[in-house]
Amino acid sequence: MSKKINEDLLNERKKCTFDMQELTHVIDCGEQNTMKRKFIDDYILNIKELWDDVPEEYLSHKERYENAIRKAFIILRCLREFNSSSMQVSEHRTPTNIYSIQDGIFRNVNPLLIHVGLFWSAIAAQASADQQAEWLKADSKMIGTYAQTELGHGSHLRGIETTATFDPETDEFVLNTPKLTSYKWWPGGLGKTANSCLVMAQLCINGTCHGLHIFLVQIRDYDTHEPLPGIKVGEIGPKMGFNTADNGFLGFDNCRIPRSNMLMKNVQVLRDGTYVKPKHNKLAYGSMVLTRVMLITDLANQLSRAATIAVRYSAVRHQSQIKSDEPECQILDYVSQQHKLFICLASSHAFRVVGLWMWNTHRMVTADIHQGNMEQLPELHSLACCLKAVCSRDATSLVEQCRLACGGHGYLLSSNLPQIYNYTAAAITYEGEYTVLMLQTARYLMKSWKNALEHEPLPANVAFLGAYIKRNYEQWQSSPEGIINGFKDIAAGKIKTSYDTLQRHLRNGLDPEEAWNLSSIQLTDASEVYTRSLLCELFWRDTKQTCNTVSINLAVVLEQLGELYLVYWALEKHGDLLLYSTISRNDIELLQSRYGELLALIRPNAVGLVDAFDIRDEVLSSTLGAYDGRVYERMMEEASKSPLNAEVVNESFRKYIRPVLLKNKM
Amino acid sequence: MSKKINEDLLNERKKCTFDMQELTHVIDCGEQNTMKRKFIDDYILNIKELWDDVPEEYLSHKERYENAIRKAFIILRCLREFNSSSMQVSEHRTPTNIYSIQDGIFRNVNPLLIHVGLFWSAIAAQASADQQAEWLKADSKMIGTYAQTELGHGSHLRGIETTATFDPETDEFVLNTPKLTSYKWWPGGLGKTANSCLVMAQLCINGTCHGLHIFLVQIRDYDTHEPLPGIKVGEIGPKMGFNTADNGFLGFDNCRIPRSNMLMKNVQVLRDGTYVKPKHNKLAYGSMVLTRVMLITDLANQLSRAATIAVRYSAVRHQSQIKSDEPECQILDYVSQQHKLFICLASSHAFRVVGLWMWNTHRMVTADIHQGNMEQLPELHSLACCLKAVCSRDATSLVEQCRLACGGHGYLLSSNLPQIYNYTAAAITYEGEYTVLMLQTARYLMKSWKNALEHEPLPANVAFLGAYIKRNYEQWQSSPEGIINGFKDIAAGKIKTSYDTLQRHLRNGLDPEEAWNLSSIQLTDASEVYTRSLLCELFWRDTKQTCNTVSINLAVVLEQLGELYLVYWALEKHGDLLLYSTISRNDIELLQSRYGELLALIRPNAVGLVDAFDIRDEVLSSTLGAYDGRVYERMMEEASKSPLNAEVVNESFRKYIRPVLLKNKM
Repeated sequence: MSKKINEDLLNERKKCTFDMQELTHVIDCGEQNTMKRKFIDDYILNIKELWDDVPEEYLSHKERYENAIRKAFIILRCLREFNSSSMQVSEHRTPTNIYSIQDGIFRNVNPLLIHVGLFWSAIAAQASADQQAEWLKADSKMIGTYAQTELGHGSHLRGIETTATFDPETDEFVLNTPKLTSYKWWPGGLGKTANSCLVMAQLCINGTCHGLHIFLVQIRDYDTHEPLPGIKVGEIGPKMGFNTADNGFLGFDNCRIPRSNMLMKNVQVLRDGTYVKPKHNKLAYGSMVLTRVMLITDLANQLSRAATIAVRYSAVRHQSQIKSDEPECQILDYVSQQHKLFICLASSHAFRVVGLWMWNTHRMVTADIHQGNMEQLPELHSLACCLKAVCSRDATSLVEQCRLACGGHGYLLSSNLPQIYNYTAAAITYEGEYTVLMLQTARYLMKSWKNALEHEPLPANVAFLGAYIKRNYEQWQSSPEGIINGFKDIAAGKIKTSYDTLQRHLRNGLDPEEAWNLSSIQLTDASEVYTRSLLCELFWRDTKQTCNTVSINLAVVLEQLGELYLVYWALEKHGDLLLYSTISRNDIELLQSRYGELLALIRPNAVGLVDAFDIRDEVLSSTLGAYDGRVYERMMEEASKSPLNAEVVNESFRKYIRPVLLKNKM
Repeated sequence: MSKKINEDLLNERKKCTFDMQELTHVIDCGEQNTMKRKFIDDYILNIKELWDDVPEEYLSHKERYENAIRKAFIILRCLREFNSSSMQVSEHRTPTNIYSIQDGIFRNVNPLLIHVGLFWSAIAAQASADQQAEWLKADSKMIGTYAQTELGHGSHLRGIETTATFDPETDEFVLNTPKLTSYKWWPGGLGKTANSCLVMAQLCINGTCHGLHIFLVQIRDYDTHEPLPGIKVGEIGPKMGFNTADNGFLGFDNCRIPRSNMLMKNVQVLRDGTYVKPKHNKLAYGSMVLTRVMLITDLANQLSRAATIAVRYSAVRHQSQIKSDEPECQILDYVSQQHKLFICLASSHAFRVVGLWMWNTHRMVTADIHQGNMEQLPELHSLACCLKAVCSRDATSLVEQCRLACGGHGYLLSSNLPQIYNYTAAAITYEGEYTVLMLQTARYLMKSWKNALEHEPLPANVAFLGAYIKRNYEQWQSSPEGIINGFKDIAAGKIKTSYDTLQRHLRNGLDPEEAWNLSSIQLTDASEVYTRSLLCELFWRDTKQTCNTVSINLAVVLEQLGELYLVYWALEKHGDLLLYSTISRNDIELLQSRYGELLALIRPNAVGLVDAFDIRDEVLSSTLGAYDGRVYERMMEEASKSPLNAEVVNESFRKYIRPVLLKNKM
């Protein structure tokens, strides 16, 4: 089998009208980052032990874990080498794809993800200066994780049952999980790997509960790795994805830790049991907001992988004829296929842009908080909730759309699309479940509407509510700006309707909580369309700005992607536009025809656009998506790695099949 | 830990207003079937070797296959015992859930699925009487599968590249897969298990190609199981699901079979190479249509499993408070949760009803065909296409909705929801990919519209097109019948618009194929809404009929489910209703409020409704969904089965972790 590049892909690349590398640099936020990423890629690619001969999908659950741990410690060493300083506070906390090579090494996930990505940064954020000096020492033997969720409690933090009771006699906290439902459940790396754990527990002093606080608990002996007394720990079993993160459970039976192991940056318990309250009770939520923010960039990266695989495969795959006298055509030429895939390209760029914007917003608000100004915290929280929720749901369904667009072959794990789905789908639930988050934003929107009615000043991202009250509808315009205004009209209209519904329920004598519950479908809906209006506006604004800084050829293509995103969603939401804007049936038909034009305009650049994501074959890990387009050869090569194919006849024949055949009556 | 039934579930069951068993009998199509199913359940439950101590998710790919093959031959023996006659032509080809216990034994799938379910029935349908007599002999040593799809060709059958060339000298066919893309790829059981294969290949005689025909090919030696000369066979590697079906590849290099191995019921090749054409060229598609029809019932069953798990879990799980002075409430009390789950209940019933209707339609049309009347074949084909497509997509997204409604715990394989998703999702692609099928139905609809314009007689299911031409809109009515008419209005409106678009493209000089491609988004859309109108009408009609035969208490609940289905979809498609019917904004608000009422009405019976599916715990295979509601206990019990938990310290500590800790610089 020849190893040259597939002819169709060569042709596609010739057709590309823009400089792919220029776009790569835009995506990477500058040429320097591209170079850094490539340096890291090359460095890690050269470590042979990191690359499996037999894909991990063939291994047993236990073998997979062991193989991943082996690799995780090699990676940890590399990360240390890349960063002369301690890698304890990880560079992962900036939105970047420079470590994306890890996606290729761990087809599930790095079991030290929480250790590297969350454990140390939580200590940096929540521990006092003294504690940090002690724990961040270079000779630390801690391998850490972070335990919040319990078997019986997830999103409702106040319900958490684990207790840390202060014992003034010994100057210790005594940790307990009083019921089966209080067991910590889910933390990554907890099952078999971690020896230390940040534990979220109800702080009890002298019979008074002071709510949730964080405690550093050693759970295994540093030398023997055996669980310490009072600790019951294990892994929770296989999952849809993340199978190489040994997610674990943790129970406490009078487990004692020194008082100094409570994280005391913002709050303290003194020797005599005096409780010193935090200055602001929202301070603890900072790292959760940041995790949500970071996630958006990660989702953009995962969607880019899926889109790269599906677009390249669609250029290589031929099926049926568009014209009966011509050979079978590339499936990428089917408009229905373009309809499935190009929105994935556009959405990946939208999420990248919005992720970066949120990260910058987070930095500014955090700086303000450090100055004692908490004013923008509610808006930040509301934005992080709804953007995390909608981006995770969109990314997941678009990744699945990419998989389905590859037909049967997308169902093979060697396509890697199912694994990307399993990874992405988890994000709809972890760090705040979709509906819970949408309703948090809805609460903010209801307050904002009330403020708008009372002519109070409104933060930037809800300022349109004030305008809406003054003018009601704006005349529909079939331009990008018109679509954005249309979405704002829907958002304002639905926010108003939800608010009115709530008020009606209250006038009818319902409790506020009952009224809220009865309105929750509408409230979620209002949050969703508000989020869509944000995504549309932020993406389009950034597109216009970027277009001013890049070459004209690239600008044309970026503008097409931006417009595609807006028109796609306007058509998806045409029912709401009919209800809440002045759009007409004729306007909708014009949008449909513009949508068709945009698909045709983007078509010649589709492969160029995914090439510009510049994702190495090793990161894609996909038979269908490799740069050279040797789809069928790779599928056969991957199949040949199956241990079942290593033997001509499996022993099942002798044990189970032959005896039945001999009986001669199948 | 006590083993009594969860209090919440006990309360829910007390609240149920109808006789669950009565509904079970409706679902099973009669008490006798219920009894038969329970008998089979009990019989198989008592075979200890069929039930794993360690769930298969912990095993390696190879171990899983071997374990499944072991169980498959036990099941085969049982099936033979249940049916005094030969089980070669399987009872699976009627829409039933009586063998659903298999879903519990094979968490992926029975590797003999194709052998039992398709191989023998294809022989019965396509082989001549002589051939059947020969091959169906009780002493057959054949373990069979069915090979159609190739590495490079799926939905586009005409593109299939495998050839069977008649050699008049030896009276044989010579089979070849000339290119890598011609390799057969996907057949279940082909990789390691089957020794015989029905192969779809291009028949070539004297340099003339007569198109696709089916050939019976022995691929492995009956005694040694070694592949025969000219055969290259193996398994294709791990997939999202179906991992215990050793889906395989198959290549031919001048593989010779006797002429008599072509299936010759409808078509013959004589000794001198004379080709005797079939009487009707559509006769070969019969079994594909039947498989699509059967699938709808299977999808209903899978959705029932997912809904049972999610509803019971939602009754057991408590989270947050609706009222601040009350304890944490059941999440089933959240309207947003009801919104996610009750449509799953209703859809499961809808698919069951439609699956049965399609099966009866198929029987009638097939009987006609045997009488030589092919008239209804196009309508049957069009119905099977669109109903298979939409039901598979709906079921898949609703199963995932159930999983997401269970929060993080739904992500655990011990919930079984991910496996049900992986199983269901495959159906969107196999036996006809979604978009391909929707466009097949669209082609039928375009023809029907043309017939309607020309006042030709129309088959029953498209008769509304004729009515639409005469009267255009019907006045909107907010009743079930009004909603069904609304959907017909949308369907007719979109069919008309698609037709007009096609005609406009043609007038502008485009080829019919180009015009078709450019209109494909609209055409798919028209097919979808047409299918929805069918689902709504068929489900509601059946509901009304069933309500006349059951007790009043049950009738009330069934009617609520039927109405919920209609109102849910009317709200989902309100944009299309605004465009294509006379619905007003006020009508939509009324529907929203009716939808809320229906959720509240169904709420007390939710657990009763899933209990009535009567799915045994062993079939559910779910920690979250068992009848007794011991959710958390079961989760912990399942986790304890993990081989990683069998040892206190995994060897990775000694090999990889300790060396790093000793270096003292994490």
